Amino acid sequence: MKKDRNGAQSPFVMAGPCAVESEEQLFQTAQVVKEAGGQYLRGGAFKPRTSPHSFQGLREKGLEMLGQAHRFFGLQVVTEVMDPRDVELVARYAQVLQIGSRNMQNFSLLKEVGRSGYPVLLKRGLAATAQEWLDAAEYIRVEGNERIMLCERGIRTFSDFTRNTLDLSVVPYLKQRCPYPVVVDPSHATGDRTLVIPMARAAVAAGCDGLMLEIHPDPAHALCDGDQSLNLEEFRDFMIEMGEDEERRQYRVS
Amino acid sequence: MKKDRNGAQSPFVMAGPCAVESEEQLFQTAQVVKEAGGQYLRGGAFKPRTSPHSFQGLREKGLEMLGQAHRFFGLQVVTEVMDPRDVELVARYAQVLQIGSRNMQNFSLLKEVGRSGYPVLLKRGLAATAQEWLDAAEYIRVEGNERIMLCERGIRTFSDFTRNTLDLSVVPYLKQRCPYPVVVDPSHATGDRTLVIPMARAAVAAGCDGLMLEIHPDPAHALCDGDQSLNLEEFRDFMIEMGEDEERRQYRVS
Amino acid sequence: MKKDRNGAQSPFVMAGPCAVESEEQLFQTAQVVKEAGGQYLRGGAFKPRTSPHSFQGLREKGLEMLGQAHRFFGLQVVTEVMDPRDVELVARYAQVLQIGSRNMQNFSLLKEVGRSGYPVLLKRGLAATAQEWLDAAEYIRVEGNERIMLCERGIRTFSDFTRNTLDLSVVPYLKQRCPYPVVVDPSHATGDRTLVIPMARAAVAAGCDGLMLEIHPDPAHALCDGDQSLNLEEFRDFMIEMGEDEERRQYRVS
Amino acid sequence: MKKDRNGAQSPFVMAGPCAVESEEQLFQTAQVVKEAGGQYLRGGAFKPRTSPHSFQGLREKGLEMLGQAHRFFGLQVVTEVMDPRDVELVARYAQVLQIGSRNMQNFSLLKEVGRSGYPVLLKRGLAATAQEWLDAAEYIRVEGNERIMLCERGIRTFSDFTRNTLDLSVVPYLKQRCPYPVVVDPSHATGDRTLVIPMARAAVAAGCDGLMLEIHPDPAHALCDGDQSLNLEEFRDFMIEMGEDEERRQYRVS
Repeated sequence: MKKDRNGAQSPFVMAGPCAVESEEQLFQTAQVVKEAGGQYLRGGAFKPRTSPHSFQGLREKGLEMLGQAHRFFGLQVVTEVMDPRDVELVARYAQVLQIGSRNMQNFSLLKEVGRSGYPVLLKRGLAATAQEWLDAAEYIRVEGNERIMLCERGIRTFSDFTRNTLDLSVVPYLKQRCPYPVVVDPSHATGDRTLVIPMARAAVAAGCDGLMLEIHPDPAHALCDGDQSLNLEEFRDFMIEMGEDEERRQYRVS
Repeated sequence: MKKDRNGAQSPFVMAGPCAVESEEQLFQTAQVVKEAGGQYLRGGAFKPRTSPHSFQGLREKGLEMLGQAHRFFGLQVVTEVMDPRDVELVARYAQVLQIGSRNMQNFSLLKEVGRSGYPVLLKRGLAATAQEWLDAAEYIRVEGNERIMLCERGIRTFSDFTRNTLDLSVVPYLKQRCPYPVVVDPSHATGDRTLVIPMARAAVAAGCDGLMLEIHPDPAHALCDGDQSLNLEEFRDFMIEMGEDEERRQYRVS
Repeated sequence: MKKDRNGAQSPFVMAGPCAVESEEQLFQTAQVVKEAGGQYLRGGAFKPRTSPHSFQGLREKGLEMLGQAHRFFGLQVVTEVMDPRDVELVARYAQVLQIGSRNMQNFSLLKEVGRSGYPVLLKRGLAATAQEWLDAAEYIRVEGNERIMLCERGIRTFSDFTRNTLDLSVVPYLKQRCPYPVVVDPSHATGDRTLVIPMARAAVAAGCDGLMLEIHPDPAHALCDGDQSLNLEEFRDFMIEMGEDEERRQYRVS
Repeated sequence: MKKDRNGAQSPFVMAGPCAVESEEQLFQTAQVVKEAGGQYLRGGAFKPRTSPHSFQGLREKGLEMLGQAHRFFGLQVVTEVMDPRDVELVARYAQVLQIGSRNMQNFSLLKEVGRSGYPVLLKRGLAATAQEWLDAAEYIRVEGNERIMLCERGIRTFSDFTRNTLDLSVVPYLKQRCPYPVVVDPSHATGDRTLVIPMARAAVAAGCDGLMLEIHPDPAHALCDGDQSLNLEEFRDFMIEMGEDEERRQYRVS
């Protein structure tokens, strides 16, 4: 166990705003993600909102902005697809197709992204057991697509001080049972900016392969999930901290 | 409160097998539903199964059988639609489109059934709060379709002696807050044949408008959910019992 | 199944205030319980409160008032004991010792009430499985005391429109597995006056042996749990309704 | 945030068997805890078991063994007290009184350990919100005892691959809101030896002050909770790993 740990790499980082709001907001964010050493830019163009009366995302216009950010900054774009009929459209702009927690058992959608052959980020359903989650991934794999990442984003429990309860024990559990990279999203799980960085550190210590973080140039005015978004400064500091940890790990191996 | 109760009607009944397996199985069941005074025939043609390796339903062939049963017996057919692209197809054979609990927040599907204008049975998600459920119904209503029924089928909790925990308190709660009929499905909620009839009685006492019951000519050999299916005899007895209760209620009113 | 049901008796009723507040409040309530045909008077003298800064009950003074109410009205008194050292004291005034949900696995207390030989009302813990609840009852039984009643009062789930989620399916489940009477408390479970009577009706239909109801002469000014207390008028009406149902059941049997 | 982190100390460690079984088992374990740099020896003498038919602990004989281990090895002893009448007895042998999760709201017991003035380790209840947990600590504090440690040991959820769900987000949440040290017990939370060390690392990264670990010379033959106990070798390796991390943190500060 210590061996693995000595050789551990820093996790890859997926960061960006909850929703794409404007070119300015997206590009300003993307530049910081790039400079800080992130590999993926996240941002929602199609937003699954609990109420039909909430902001639903910029849709295709948002996808185009994401596509531009990809070309300018060379970041891989991760964005959600909610409808099997939109898979081709989204894949034209994104490098990773995200399946949101509400759609973890939307089997028509899982089959469609499976057929597409594009990398898929499959978020855990709010009430999904680990086995049901692996079974959902199997719907993608049986279509011939093994480019799957699993993302823990909190489960629904009675506990009320966080938006959901981040289940980090699922990280080592999955690493023992499947070949897929495991990503942790502490932003959606906690819903509380002050808890995001401690939980990100904990996720790395638990052995996750990647982190998904919500960041925003001006969280106070974000169109959604501002309470859980880090500002760009907080994100930069965290990335520096992770870099230093990485150095120390390397130093230790040699 | 007593007044409403005096005037209470017996609930309407939706009964049938979990999955359509064959003409013989479906018609034998439909005949009993009809004779016993049920109004709706339920049966799955497209089955959302946790694993892609489980029986997925007879699909269009199953829909055709349901359409025949509708014509022969004059029962309204309730069956699940899982893909926005199948709404038209399913509506060709069914009178009520069911949205399963896994798809309660599949917003593309909700919009599509909303646009279709057909009656919709919206099952509660396994981890859905009452408000999230009403918000999901709102996705259908804003498309101009108010022909919505809400179906409680159990929520996911720590409790392990039933498959899910039937939340009957949601029945009076919803009746106070929305105009939609409230249906209770004790079969999926309990997953245990011996608990279905007591919970059906409780649902009626709690004020539900309809009951959804899984019944099968030979539960021991059902292709899915046999453990929770009543056999046709048990179903007949329960319908007689409900009829007698109804008489007594009428007797009381006069 | 129909046979049992034909012969079904109305459940016994335990009613009273959450907390004993004064002689006037208690006696006014007790008189209504007696006149309406209730068998047990409930009321808390020792109150387990989440915060030490909340009203903790009148303690021994409250017990004395309960003892007087017992002598005046001939009602059996049910009240909670929280400390193994208080069992004798409480038993001097009460006919039934209540173990609250917080203490369902307080094994020292269970053994003590077991040794006492007095009837025990064992409430289900907020997060107790049915098996853990039966195991807790076993702690009482092995001390030689089989005078046990089990009381379902709601379990803790993610659902937030009620205080807890009333799990009525546990009623038929327990009736199949143990000899103990099963009581349902819809007041604590729902925490909402408008849901108490529908859930009480549902509990009876599910086959419970007894009901525990919180009632208060002036719920708006109750020292605790006013939101879930019926007023005396609502309670009277419900008892009349139950009496009429009973008549109809008898009429049916003959 | 980085500042705190640079200065972070390694957490203190409480380790030992679930239950005291014999002098040999206890002393062999205590020696390893001491040599590896642990500060506290944990071990149950009074065991709260779900069923009265399970092993209930060696009781006073177990306490005596713990007292001897304290004198021989100079480790602080942490052991559970279940009955307010046993507080004095347990305090004669232990330096820290543990309140188990089943007794988190056993208010008589909380008051008694509060009056005792001894350090208290208060485990979180299986279904306790963070606020209810802090309110339980307040029952101890109001008796004049502020020597309180809070121990997260997993909450009860629907998730079934671990025994309970370890809620690490409560660690930074509590550190922001109370002055008490926060301890994490990954052994009881996961119930799975293979998940204990990754979760222990995650707990440290989340900022906990202490770790509680179940270890046993021969987990396969432990009288309780063998599945979740580390063997002495695994424990030693983990302690060495933590020591190295500590060194690197120091190196970084300077």
